[in-house]
Amino acid sequence: MDAVSRIEKALNAAVALAEGPGCPPKLGAAMRHAVFPKGARIRPRLCLAVAGACGDDAPALSEAAGAAIELLHCASLVHDDLPCFDDAATRRGRPSVHRAYGEPLAVLAGDALIVLAFQLMARSASVAPLRLAPLITIIGDSVGVPRGIVAGQGWESEDRCDLAEYQQEKTGSLFAAATAAGAAAAGADPEAWRMLGDRLGEAYQVADDLRDAVESEDEMGKPAGQDAAHGRPSAVLQFGLHGAIARLETLADEAVASIPDCLGQSALRSVILSETRRLLPRKLAASAA
Amino acid sequence: MDAVSRIEKALNAAVALAEGPGCPPKLGAAMRHAVFPKGARIRPRLCLAVAGACGDDAPALSEAAGAAIELLHCASLVHDDLPCFDDAATRRGRPSVHRAYGEPLAVLAGDALIVLAFQLMARSASVAPLRLAPLITIIGDSVGVPRGIVAGQGWESEDRCDLAEYQQEKTGSLFAAATAAGAAAAGADPEAWRMLGDRLGEAYQVADDLRDAVESEDEMGKPAGQDAAHGRPSAVLQFGLHGAIARLETLADEAVASIPDCLGQSALRSVILSETRRLLPRKLAASAA
Repeated sequence: MDAVSRIEKALNAAVALAEGPGCPPKLGAAMRHAVFPKGARIRPRLCLAVAGACGDDAPALSEAAGAAIELLHCASLVHDDLPCFDDAATRRGRPSVHRAYGEPLAVLAGDALIVLAFQLMARSASVAPLRLAPLITIIGDSVGVPRGIVAGQGWESEDRCDLAEYQQEKTGSLFAAATAAGAAAAGADPEAWRMLGDRLGEAYQVADDLRDAVESEDEMGKPAGQDAAHGRPSAVLQFGLHGAIARLETLADEAVASIPDCLGQSALRSVILSETRRLLPRKLAASAA
Repeated sequence: MDAVSRIEKALNAAVALAEGPGCPPKLGAAMRHAVFPKGARIRPRLCLAVAGACGDDAPALSEAAGAAIELLHCASLVHDDLPCFDDAATRRGRPSVHRAYGEPLAVLAGDALIVLAFQLMARSASVAPLRLAPLITIIGDSVGVPRGIVAGQGWESEDRCDLAEYQQEKTGSLFAAATAAGAAAAGADPEAWRMLGDRLGEAYQVADDLRDAVESEDEMGKPAGQDAAHGRPSAVLQFGLHGAIARLETLADEAVASIPDCLGQSALRSVILSETRRLLPRKLAASAA
Protein backbone atom coordinates (compact mmCIF):
# COMPACT_ATOMS: atom_id res chain seq x y z
CA MET A 1 0.00 0.00 0.00
CA ASP A 2 1.35 3.48 -0.87
CA ALA A 3 1.98 6.03 1.86
CA VAL A 4 -1.11 8.14 1.21
CA SER A 5 -3.40 5.08 1.41
CA ARG A 6 -1.74 3.90 4.63
CA ILE A 7 -2.28 7.35 6.19
CA GLU A 8 -5.92 7.64 5.11
CA LYS A 9 -6.61 4.14 6.39
CA ALA A 10 -5.00 4.92 9.77
CA LEU A 11 -6.88 8.23 10.05
CA ASN A 12 -10.16 6.56 9.13
CA ALA A 13 -9.63 3.88 11.77
CA ALA A 14 -8.79 6.55 14.36
CA VAL A 15 -11.87 8.66 13.69
CA ALA A 16 -14.01 5.49 13.58
CA LEU A 17 -12.75 4.73 17.09
CA ALA A 18 -14.11 8.10 18.24
CA GLU A 19 -17.39 7.48 16.43
CA GLY A 20 -17.94 4.25 18.40
CA PRO A 21 -20.96 3.43 20.60
CA GLY A 22 -21.90 6.37 22.84
CA CYS A 23 -20.47 9.11 20.61
CA PRO A 24 -22.61 12.27 20.45
CA PRO A 25 -23.47 12.32 16.71
CA LYS A 26 -22.74 15.99 16.04
CA LEU A 27 -19.38 15.83 17.80
CA GLY A 28 -18.40 12.76 15.80
CA ALA A 29 -19.40 14.54 12.59
CA ALA A 30 -17.42 17.65 13.58
CA MET A 31 -14.30 15.52 14.19
CA ARG A 32 -14.69 13.83 10.80
CA HIS A 33 -15.22 17.24 9.14
CA ALA A 34 -11.93 18.40 10.68
CA VAL A 35 -9.92 15.45 9.35
CA PHE A 36 -11.60 14.64 5.99
CA PRO A 37 -11.53 15.05 3.06
CA LYS A 38 -7.80 14.94 3.05
CA GLY A 39 -5.45 17.89 3.03
CA ALA A 40 -1.90 17.59 1.73
CA ARG A 41 -1.05 15.20 4.61
CA ILE A 42 2.48 16.51 4.24
CA ARG A 43 3.54 15.78 7.85
CA PRO A 44 2.44 12.11 7.99
CA ARG A 45 3.86 11.49 4.50
CA LEU A 46 7.16 12.87 5.77
CA CYS A 47 6.94 10.66 8.86
CA LEU A 48 6.38 7.52 6.76
CA ALA A 49 9.09 8.51 4.27
CA VAL A 50 11.65 8.74 7.08
CA ALA A 51 10.41 5.50 8.69
CA GLY A 52 10.78 3.85 5.29
CA ALA A 53 14.32 5.17 4.85
CA CYS A 54 15.11 3.67 8.29
CA GLY A 55 13.70 0.21 7.50
CA ASP A 56 10.12 0.64 8.86
CA ASP A 57 10.20 -2.61 10.86
CA ALA A 58 7.02 -1.71 12.84
CA PRO A 59 4.70 -0.25 10.19
CA ALA A 60 1.63 -0.21 12.48
CA LEU A 61 3.54 2.10 14.82
CA SER A 62 4.87 4.44 12.10
CA GLU A 63 1.35 4.71 10.66
CA ALA A 64 -0.05 5.51 14.11
CA ALA A 65 2.66 8.13 14.65
CA GLY A 66 1.96 9.72 11.27
CA ALA A 67 -1.79 9.70 11.83
CA ALA A 68 -1.35 11.12 15.36
CA ILE A 69 0.70 13.99 13.94
CA GLU A 70 -2.01 14.71 11.36
CA LEU A 71 -4.78 14.58 14.01
CA LEU A 72 -2.84 17.10 16.10
CA HIS A 73 -2.33 19.30 13.04
CA CYS A 74 -6.08 19.17 12.28
CA ALA A 75 -6.88 19.98 15.93
CA SER A 76 -4.65 23.05 15.78
CA LEU A 77 -6.41 24.24 12.60
CA VAL A 78 -9.84 23.85 14.20
CA HIS A 79 -8.82 25.89 17.24
CA ASP A 80 -6.85 28.47 15.21
CA ASP A 81 -9.99 29.10 13.12
CA LEU A 82 -12.12 29.92 16.21
CA PRO A 83 -13.63 33.40 16.52
CA CYS A 84 -11.19 34.35 19.31
CA PHE A 85 -8.23 33.68 16.97
CA ASP A 86 -8.52 33.96 13.16
CA ASP A 87 -12.33 33.76 12.99
CA ALA A 88 -11.89 31.95 9.67
CA ALA A 89 -15.10 31.08 7.79
CA THR A 90 -13.44 28.57 5.44
CA ARG A 91 -10.76 25.88 5.54
CA ARG A 92 -9.74 23.54 2.69
CA GLY A 93 -12.45 25.18 0.58
CA ARG A 94 -15.27 24.28 2.99
CA PRO A 95 -16.83 25.94 6.04
CA SER A 96 -14.51 25.85 9.07
CA VAL A 97 -15.66 23.51 11.86
CA HIS A 98 -17.14 26.27 14.02
CA ARG A 99 -19.06 27.68 11.06
CA ALA A 100 -20.45 24.25 10.21
CA TYR A 101 -21.09 22.94 13.75
CA GLY A 102 -20.95 25.93 16.08
CA GLU A 103 -18.26 27.11 18.46
CA PRO A 104 -18.88 24.63 21.33
CA LEU A 105 -18.47 21.60 19.06
CA ALA A 106 -15.40 23.15 17.42
CA VAL A 107 -13.69 23.56 20.81
CA LEU A 108 -14.64 19.98 21.73
CA ALA A 109 -13.66 18.49 18.36
CA GLY A 110 -10.20 20.02 18.73
CA ASP A 111 -9.86 18.72 22.29
CA ALA A 112 -11.02 15.25 21.24
CA LEU A 113 -8.58 15.11 18.30
CA ILE A 114 -5.69 15.97 20.63
CA VAL A 115 -6.65 13.14 22.98
CA LEU A 116 -7.27 10.77 20.05
CA ALA A 117 -3.69 11.23 18.83
CA PHE A 118 -2.36 9.80 22.08
CA GLN A 119 -5.03 7.07 22.33
CA LEU A 120 -4.05 5.95 18.84
CA MET A 121 -0.33 5.67 19.59
CA ALA A 122 -0.97 3.75 22.82
CA ARG A 123 -3.25 1.30 20.98
CA SER A 124 -0.62 0.66 18.29
CA ALA A 125 2.39 0.22 20.56
CA SER A 126 2.13 -3.51 21.26
CA VAL A 127 4.43 -4.29 18.29
CA ALA A 128 7.26 -2.28 19.89
CA PRO A 129 6.16 -1.12 23.38
CA LEU A 130 9.52 0.37 24.38
CA ARG A 131 9.24 2.91 21.54
CA LEU A 132 6.00 4.39 22.90
CA ALA A 133 7.45 6.72 25.55
CA PRO A 134 10.01 8.33 23.19
CA LEU A 135 7.34 8.70 20.47
CA ILE A 136 4.90 10.41 22.83
CA THR A 137 7.64 12.69 24.14
CA ILE A 138 8.71 13.69 20.61
CA ILE A 139 5.16 14.34 19.42
CA GLY A 140 3.83 15.78 22.70
CA ASP A 141 6.71 18.23 22.99
CA SER A 142 6.10 19.37 19.41
CA VAL A 143 2.50 20.40 20.08
CA GLY A 144 2.64 21.45 23.74
CA VAL A 145 4.33 24.12 25.82
CA PRO A 146 7.04 25.51 26.03
CA ARG A 147 8.14 24.76 22.44
CA GLY A 148 5.27 23.29 20.44
CA ILE A 149 2.33 24.49 18.35
CA VAL A 150 0.28 25.69 21.32
CA ALA A 151 3.24 27.73 22.59
CA GLY A 152 3.67 29.23 19.12
CA GLN A 153 0.02 30.26 19.03
CA GLY A 154 0.48 31.68 22.55
CA TRP A 155 3.08 34.15 21.28
CA GLU A 156 0.27 35.93 19.40
CA SER A 157 -0.97 37.07 22.84
CA GLU A 158 2.39 38.58 23.83
CA ASP A 159 3.48 42.15 23.13
CA ARG A 160 6.86 41.06 21.78
CA CYS A 161 7.42 38.06 19.55
CA ASP A 162 10.48 36.76 17.67
CA LEU A 163 9.50 35.67 14.12
CA ALA A 164 11.96 32.78 13.93
CA GLU A 165 10.90 31.37 17.31
CA TYR A 166 7.21 31.88 16.56
CA GLN A 167 7.41 30.03 13.25
CA GLN A 168 9.65 27.31 14.68
CA GLU A 169 7.04 26.56 17.35
CA LYS A 170 3.93 27.12 15.26
CA THR A 171 5.01 25.05 12.24
CA GLY A 172 8.60 23.81 12.45
CA SER A 173 8.08 21.85 15.65
CA LEU A 174 5.54 19.44 14.15
CA PHE A 175 7.66 18.96 11.02
CA ALA A 176 10.71 18.18 13.16
CA ALA A 177 8.52 15.79 15.16
CA ALA A 178 7.35 14.12 11.93
CA THR A 179 10.89 13.21 10.89
CA ALA A 180 12.07 12.36 14.42
CA ALA A 181 8.95 10.25 15.07
CA GLY A 182 9.35 8.41 11.77
CA ALA A 183 12.87 7.45 12.83
CA ALA A 184 11.82 6.55 16.41
CA ALA A 185 8.91 4.41 15.18
CA ALA A 186 11.42 2.44 13.09
CA GLY A 187 13.88 2.07 15.96
CA ALA A 188 16.41 4.62 14.60
CA ASP A 189 17.93 7.61 16.42
CA PRO A 190 15.35 10.41 16.26
CA GLU A 191 17.73 13.29 16.95
CA ALA A 192 19.70 12.77 13.72
CA TRP A 193 16.50 13.42 11.78
CA ARG A 194 15.33 16.63 13.43
CA MET A 195 17.23 18.99 11.13
CA LEU A 196 15.42 17.67 8.04
CA GLY A 197 11.99 18.31 9.55
CA ASP A 198 13.09 21.62 10.99
CA ARG A 199 14.23 22.99 7.62
CA LEU A 200 11.18 21.63 5.79
CA GLY A 201 8.89 23.11 8.40
CA GLU A 202 10.42 26.55 8.03
CA ALA A 203 10.26 26.22 4.22
CA TYR A 204 6.60 25.27 4.47
CA GLN A 205 5.89 28.26 6.74
CA VAL A 206 7.63 30.66 4.35
CA ALA A 207 5.62 29.16 1.47
CA ASP A 208 2.42 29.64 3.49
CA ASP A 209 3.33 33.28 4.16
CA LEU A 210 3.96 33.74 0.41
CA ARG A 211 0.58 32.22 -0.48
CA ASP A 212 -1.16 34.36 2.13
CA ALA A 213 0.41 37.44 0.51
CA VAL A 214 -0.12 36.70 -3.20
CA GLU A 215 -3.04 34.26 -3.59
CA SER A 216 -6.81 34.77 -3.40
CA GLU A 217 -9.22 32.97 -1.07
CA ASP A 218 -10.37 30.81 -4.02
CA GLU A 219 -6.83 29.65 -4.74
CA MET A 220 -6.06 28.87 -1.09
CA GLY A 221 -9.39 27.40 0.06
CA LYS A 222 -9.16 29.67 3.14
CA PRO A 223 -9.13 33.45 3.74
CA ALA A 224 -6.12 35.26 2.19
CA GLY A 225 -4.21 38.30 3.44
CA GLN A 226 -4.66 37.22 7.05
CA ASP A 227 -1.10 38.02 8.20
CA ALA A 228 -1.33 41.65 7.14
CA ALA A 229 -4.95 41.93 8.36
CA HIS A 230 -4.05 40.64 11.84
CA GLY A 231 -0.62 42.33 11.98
CA ARG A 232 0.94 38.89 12.40
CA PRO A 233 4.62 38.07 11.97
CA SER A 234 5.31 36.83 8.43
CA ALA A 235 8.40 36.12 6.31
CA VAL A 236 6.98 38.39 3.58
CA LEU A 237 6.56 41.27 6.00
CA GLN A 238 10.06 40.68 7.39
CA PHE A 239 12.13 39.90 4.25
CA GLY A 240 9.97 41.26 1.40
CA LEU A 241 8.62 39.11 -1.43
CA HIS A 242 11.94 38.36 -3.15
CA GLY A 243 13.77 37.86 0.13
CA ALA A 244 11.15 35.32 1.21
CA ILE A 245 11.50 33.41 -2.09
CA ALA A 246 15.28 33.27 -1.68
CA ARG A 247 14.87 32.06 1.91
CA LEU A 248 12.58 29.26 0.71
CA GLU A 249 15.22 28.04 -1.75
CA THR A 250 17.98 28.07 0.86
CA LEU A 251 15.85 26.08 3.29
CA ALA A 252 15.03 23.44 0.67
CA ASP A 253 18.75 22.98 -0.11
CA GLU A 254 19.59 22.67 3.60
CA ALA A 255 16.83 20.10 4.06
CA VAL A 256 18.16 17.82 1.32
CA ALA A 257 21.74 18.18 2.57
CA SER A 258 20.74 17.21 6.14
CA ILE A 259 19.44 13.71 5.37
CA PRO A 260 21.50 11.28 7.49
CA ASP A 261 23.19 8.17 6.09
CA CYS A 262 20.62 5.40 5.86
CA LEU A 263 19.53 2.56 3.60
CA GLY A 264 17.00 4.69 1.72
CA GLN A 265 19.01 7.93 1.55
CA SER A 266 19.01 8.53 -2.21
CA ALA A 267 15.32 7.67 -2.64
CA LEU A 268 14.43 10.01 0.20
CA ARG A 269 16.50 12.83 -1.35
CA SER A 270 14.40 12.58 -4.53
CA VAL A 271 11.17 12.71 -2.55
CA ILE A 272 12.28 15.76 -0.57
CA LEU A 273 13.47 17.55 -3.71
CA SER A 274 10.15 17.05 -5.49
CA GLU A 275 8.17 18.06 -2.39
CA THR A 276 10.09 21.29 -1.88
CA ARG A 277 9.79 22.27 -5.56
CA ARG A 278 6.00 22.18 -5.14
CA LEU A 279 6.08 24.63 -2.24
CA LEU A 280 6.57 27.85 -4.24
CA PRO A 281 3.11 29.27 -5.11
CA ARG A 282 2.33 28.63 -8.79
CA LYS A 283 2.04 32.28 -9.82
CA LEU A 284 5.44 33.09 -8.27
CA ALA A 285 7.07 30.03 -9.92
CA ALA A 286 5.66 31.21 -13.27
CA SER A 287 6.90 34.78 -12.86
CA ALA A 288 10.35 33.54 -11.72
CA ALA A 289 10.71 31.29 -14.81
CA MET B 1 5.37 12.00 51.97
CA ASP B 2 1.55 12.09 52.25
CA ALA B 3 -0.64 11.77 49.15
CA VAL B 4 -1.55 15.45 48.89
CA SER B 5 2.11 16.52 49.01
CA ARG B 6 3.07 13.92 46.40
CA ILE B 7 0.33 15.21 44.09
CA GLU B 8 1.20 18.89 44.54
CA LYS B 9 4.87 18.10 43.93
CA ALA B 10 4.08 16.17 40.74
CA LEU B 11 1.74 18.92 39.48
CA ASN B 12 4.32 21.59 40.24
CA ALA B 13 7.00 19.67 38.35
CA ALA B 14 4.62 19.22 35.40
CA VAL B 15 3.69 22.89 35.15
CA ALA B 16 7.35 23.85 35.61
CA LEU B 17 8.13 21.69 32.57
CA ALA B 18 5.68 23.80 30.54
CA GLU B 19 7.15 27.02 31.94
CA GLY B 20 10.61 26.06 30.65
CA PRO B 21 12.78 28.10 28.24
CA GLY B 22 10.74 29.46 25.31
CA CYS B 23 7.38 29.49 27.10
CA PRO B 24 5.21 32.55 26.27
CA PRO B 25 4.92 34.14 29.75
CA LYS B 26 1.18 34.81 29.73
CA LEU B 27 0.38 31.29 28.55
CA GLY B 28 2.56 29.79 31.27
CA ALA B 29 0.81 31.99 33.86
CA ALA B 30 -2.62 30.96 32.53
CA MET B 31 -1.69 27.28 32.85
CA ARG B 32 -0.49 27.80 36.43
CA HIS B 33 -3.69 29.74 37.23
CA ALA B 34 -5.73 26.77 35.97
CA VAL B 35 -3.91 24.24 38.18
CA PHE B 36 -3.06 26.23 41.35
CA PRO B 37 -3.93 26.90 44.11
CA LYS B 38 -5.15 23.44 44.69
CA GLY B 39 -8.73 22.25 44.43
CA ALA B 40 -9.92 19.14 46.28
CA ARG B 41 -7.59 16.97 44.12
CA ILE B 42 -10.13 14.22 44.73
CA ARG B 43 -9.29 12.25 41.56
CA PRO B 44 -5.51 12.05 42.03
CA ARG B 45 -5.96 11.24 45.74
CA LEU B 46 -8.23 8.40 44.70
CA CYS B 47 -5.65 7.23 42.14
CA LEU B 48 -2.87 7.17 44.76
CA ALA B 49 -5.14 5.52 47.36
CA VAL B 50 -5.85 2.64 44.97
CA ALA B 51 -2.19 2.40 43.91
CA GLY B 52 -1.29 2.23 47.62
CA ALA B 53 -3.84 -0.51 48.28
CA CYS B 54 -2.24 -2.45 45.39
CA GLY B 55 1.34 -2.11 46.68
CA ASP B 56 2.43 1.03 44.75
CA ASP B 57 5.71 -0.51 43.51
CA ALA B 58 6.30 2.28 40.93
CA PRO B 59 5.41 5.45 42.86
CA ALA B 60 6.81 7.81 40.18
CA LEU B 61 4.34 6.32 37.71
CA SER B 62 1.31 6.42 40.04
CA GLU B 63 2.13 10.06 40.87
CA ALA B 64 2.39 10.89 37.15
CA ALA B 65 -0.92 9.13 36.47
CA GLY B 66 -2.64 11.01 39.30
CA ALA B 67 -1.18 14.34 38.21
CA ALA B 68 -2.12 13.65 34.56
CA ILE B 69 -5.71 13.00 35.62
CA GLU B 70 -5.79 16.27 37.56
CA LEU B 71 -4.27 18.21 34.62
CA LEU B 72 -6.99 16.81 32.35
CA HIS B 73 -9.65 17.71 34.92
CA CYS B 74 -8.28 21.28 35.13
CA ALA B 75 -8.22 21.50 31.31
CA SER B 76 -11.86 20.50 31.13
CA LEU B 77 -12.79 23.16 33.69
CA VAL B 78 -10.97 25.86 31.73
CA HIS B 79 -12.76 24.95 28.51
CA ASP B 80 -16.15 24.40 30.21
CA ASP B 81 -15.91 27.93 31.64
CA LEU B 82 -15.45 29.51 28.16
CA PRO B 83 -18.07 31.98 26.91
CA CYS B 84 -19.40 29.44 24.36
CA PHE B 85 -20.21 27.00 27.21
CA ASP B 86 -20.92 28.16 30.78
CA ASP B 87 -19.39 31.64 30.43
CA ALA B 88 -18.37 31.35 34.10
CA ALA B 89 -16.71 34.41 35.62
CA THR B 90 -15.33 32.57 38.64
CA ARG B 91 -13.80 29.20 39.50
CA ARG B 92 -12.46 28.09 42.90
CA GLY B 93 -13.31 31.56 44.21
CA ARG B 94 -11.09 33.37 41.67
CA PRO B 95 -11.60 34.69 38.14
CA SER B 96 -11.90 31.90 35.58
CA VAL B 97 -8.92 31.60 33.21
CA HIS B 98 -10.62 33.40 30.31
CA ARG B 99 -11.66 36.28 32.60
CA ALA B 100 -8.12 36.61 33.95
CA TYR B 101 -6.15 36.04 30.71
CA GLY B 102 -8.64 36.37 27.84
CA GLU B 103 -10.32 33.78 25.69
CA PRO B 104 -7.40 32.94 23.35
CA LEU B 105 -5.08 32.05 26.23
CA ALA B 106 -7.86 30.07 27.95
CA VAL B 107 -8.35 27.92 24.84
CA LEU B 108 -4.58 27.45 24.56
CA ALA B 109 -4.04 26.76 28.28
CA GLY B 110 -6.66 23.98 28.12
CA ASP B 111 -5.04 22.51 25.01
CA ALA B 112 -1.59 22.66 26.58
CA LEU B 113 -2.76 20.99 29.81
CA ILE B 114 -4.25 18.11 27.80
CA VAL B 115 -0.95 17.59 25.99
CA LEU B 116 1.03 18.00 29.23
CA ALA B 117 -0.88 15.11 30.85
CA PHE B 118 0.46 12.72 28.20
CA GLN B 119 3.96 14.25 28.14
CA LEU B 120 4.13 13.72 31.91
CA MET B 121 3.16 10.04 31.78
CA ALA B 122 5.63 9.32 28.96
CA ARG B 123 8.43 11.01 30.92
CA SER B 124 7.68 8.94 34.04
CA ALA B 125 7.33 5.54 32.40
CA SER B 126 10.97 4.43 32.48
CA VAL B 127 10.42 2.67 35.86
CA ALA B 128 7.80 0.38 34.28
CA PRO B 129 7.63 1.03 30.53
CA LEU B 130 5.20 -1.78 29.72
CA ARG B 131 2.55 -0.09 31.89
CA LEU B 132 2.55 3.09 29.78
CA ALA B 133 0.27 1.94 26.93
CA PRO B 134 -2.49 0.61 29.25
CA LEU B 135 -2.27 3.76 31.40
CA ILE B 136 -2.62 6.08 28.42
CA THR B 137 -5.51 4.02 27.07
CA ILE B 138 -7.33 4.11 30.42
CA ILE B 139 -6.83 7.83 30.91
CA GLY B 140 -7.19 8.84 27.24
CA ASP B 141 -10.46 6.92 26.86
CA SER B 142 -11.82 8.62 29.99
CA VAL B 143 -11.37 12.13 28.59
CA GLY B 144 -11.83 11.56 24.85
CA VAL B 145 -14.60 10.43 22.53
CA PRO B 146 -16.85 8.34 22.43
CA ARG B 147 -17.07 7.84 26.23
CA GLY B 148 -15.00 10.43 28.06
CA ILE B 149 -15.34 13.98 29.38
CA VAL B 150 -15.26 15.62 25.95
CA ALA B 151 -18.01 13.29 24.73
CA GLY B 152 -20.07 14.13 27.83
CA GLN B 153 -19.73 17.84 27.16
CA GLY B 154 -20.67 17.14 23.54
CA TRP B 155 -24.07 15.82 24.61
CA GLU B 156 -24.98 19.39 25.64
CA SER B 157 -25.08 20.16 21.89
CA GLU B 158 -27.54 17.36 21.10
CA ASP B 159 -31.33 17.67 21.19
CA ARG B 160 -31.74 14.48 23.22
CA CYS B 161 -29.49 13.44 26.09
CA ASP B 162 -29.69 10.58 28.60
CA LEU B 163 -28.84 11.87 32.11
CA ALA B 164 -27.08 8.71 33.26
CA GLU B 165 -24.90 8.50 30.16
CA TYR B 166 -24.18 12.23 30.23
CA GLN B 167 -23.03 12.15 33.86
CA GLN B 168 -21.12 8.91 33.37
CA GLU B 169 -19.09 10.50 30.58
CA LYS B 170 -18.82 14.00 32.04
CA THR B 171 -17.73 12.97 35.54
CA GLY B 172 -17.86 9.21 36.13
CA SER B 173 -15.37 8.38 33.38
CA LEU B 174 -12.47 10.27 34.97
CA PHE B 175 -13.23 8.81 38.41
CA ALA B 176 -13.30 5.30 36.95
CA ALA B 177 -10.02 6.11 35.21
CA ALA B 178 -8.54 7.33 38.51
CA THR B 179 -9.12 4.00 40.23
CA ALA B 180 -8.24 1.89 37.16
CA ALA B 181 -5.08 3.94 36.53
CA GLY B 182 -4.02 3.67 40.18
CA ALA B 183 -4.24 -0.12 39.86
CA ALA B 184 -2.51 -0.20 36.46
CA ALA B 185 0.33 2.03 37.66
CA ALA B 186 0.93 -0.47 40.47
CA GLY B 187 0.82 -3.47 38.13
CA ALA B 188 -2.64 -4.69 39.27
CA ASP B 189 -5.68 -5.50 37.11
CA PRO B 190 -7.34 -2.17 36.29
CA GLU B 191 -10.76 -3.57 35.35
CA ALA B 192 -11.46 -4.88 38.87
CA TRP B 193 -11.19 -1.30 40.13
CA ARG B 194 -13.50 0.48 37.68
CA MET B 195 -16.70 -0.03 39.69
CA LEU B 196 -15.28 1.86 42.69
CA GLY B 197 -14.44 4.91 40.60
CA ASP B 198 -17.66 4.67 38.66
CA ARG B 199 -19.84 4.80 41.80
CA LEU B 200 -17.76 7.54 43.41
CA GLY B 201 -17.93 9.58 40.22
CA GLU B 202 -21.69 9.37 40.08
CA ALA B 203 -21.90 10.22 43.81
CA TYR B 204 -19.68 13.23 43.24
CA GLN B 205 -21.84 14.38 40.32
CA VAL B 206 -25.05 14.05 42.36
CA ALA B 207 -23.38 16.04 45.17
CA ASP B 208 -22.37 18.71 42.64
CA ASP B 209 -25.95 18.93 41.36
CA LEU B 210 -27.15 19.28 44.97
CA ARG B 211 -24.66 22.09 45.65
CA ASP B 212 -25.65 23.84 42.42
CA ALA B 213 -29.29 23.72 43.55
CA VAL B 214 -28.96 24.77 47.23
CA GLU B 215 -25.71 26.73 47.69
CA SER B 216 -24.79 30.33 46.86
CA GLU B 217 -21.92 31.48 44.62
CA ASP B 218 -19.96 32.46 47.77
CA GLU B 219 -20.28 28.96 49.23
CA MET B 220 -19.29 27.23 45.99
CA GLY B 221 -16.57 29.56 44.69
CA LYS B 222 -18.29 29.45 41.28
CA PRO B 223 -21.68 30.56 39.90
CA ALA B 224 -24.67 28.71 41.43
CA GLY B 225 -27.98 27.64 39.86
CA GLN B 226 -26.28 26.96 36.53
CA ASP B 227 -28.13 23.70 35.78
CA ALA B 228 -31.56 25.31 36.00
CA ALA B 229 -30.33 28.48 34.23
CA HIS B 230 -28.93 26.49 31.28
CA GLY B 231 -31.70 23.84 31.27
CA ARG B 232 -29.03 21.21 31.83
CA PRO B 233 -29.64 17.62 32.97
CA SER B 234 -29.29 17.35 36.77
CA ALA B 235 -30.05 14.71 39.40
CA VAL B 236 -32.04 17.32 41.38
CA LEU B 237 -34.20 18.12 38.35
CA GLN B 238 -34.68 14.40 37.63
CA PHE B 239 -35.17 12.91 41.14
CA GLY B 240 -36.11 15.93 43.28
CA LEU B 241 -34.04 17.08 46.27
CA HIS B 242 -34.79 14.14 48.59
CA GLY B 243 -34.50 11.60 45.79
CA ALA B 244 -31.08 12.97 44.91
CA ILE B 245 -29.92 12.74 48.55
CA ALA B 246 -31.07 9.10 48.74
CA ARG B 247 -29.26 8.34 45.47
CA LEU B 248 -26.05 9.81 46.89
CA GLU B 249 -26.24 7.48 49.92
CA THR B 250 -26.86 4.39 47.78
CA LEU B 251 -23.91 5.20 45.55
CA ALA B 252 -21.57 5.66 48.53
CA ASP B 253 -22.59 2.24 49.92
CA GLU B 254 -22.06 0.58 46.54
CA ALA B 255 -18.62 2.20 46.23
CA VAL B 256 -17.41 0.81 49.55
CA ALA B 257 -18.83 -2.64 48.78
CA SER B 258 -17.06 -2.77 45.40
CA ILE B 259 -13.47 -2.57 46.69
CA PRO B 260 -11.66 -5.72 45.46
CA ASP B 261 -9.63 -7.99 47.74
CA CYS B 262 -6.18 -6.47 48.17
CA LEU B 263 -3.51 -5.90 50.80
CA GLY B 264 -4.84 -2.49 51.79
CA GLN B 265 -8.57 -3.26 51.56
CA SER B 266 -9.70 -2.25 55.06
CA ALA B 267 -7.64 0.95 55.13
CA LEU B 268 -9.05 1.93 51.76
CA ARG B 269 -12.61 1.27 52.95
CA SER B 270 -12.12 3.79 55.76
CA VAL B 271 -10.77 6.40 53.37
CA ILE B 272 -13.69 5.95 50.96
CA LEU B 273 -16.24 6.10 53.79
CA SER B 274 -14.86 9.37 55.14
CA GLU B 275 -14.61 10.87 51.63
CA THR B 276 -18.20 10.05 50.72
CA ARG B 277 -19.55 11.43 54.04
CA ARG B 278 -18.05 14.80 53.11
CA LEU B 279 -19.91 14.92 49.79
CA LEU B 280 -23.35 15.94 51.09
CA PRO B 281 -23.57 19.76 51.13
CA ARG B 282 -23.26 21.06 54.72
CA LYS B 283 -26.67 22.73 54.88
CA LEU B 284 -28.40 19.53 53.71
CA ALA B 285 -26.42 17.39 56.18
CA ALA B 286 -27.50 19.77 58.98
CA SER B 287 -31.18 19.69 57.98
CA ALA B 288 -31.09 15.87 57.63
CA ALA B 289 -29.62 15.45 61.14
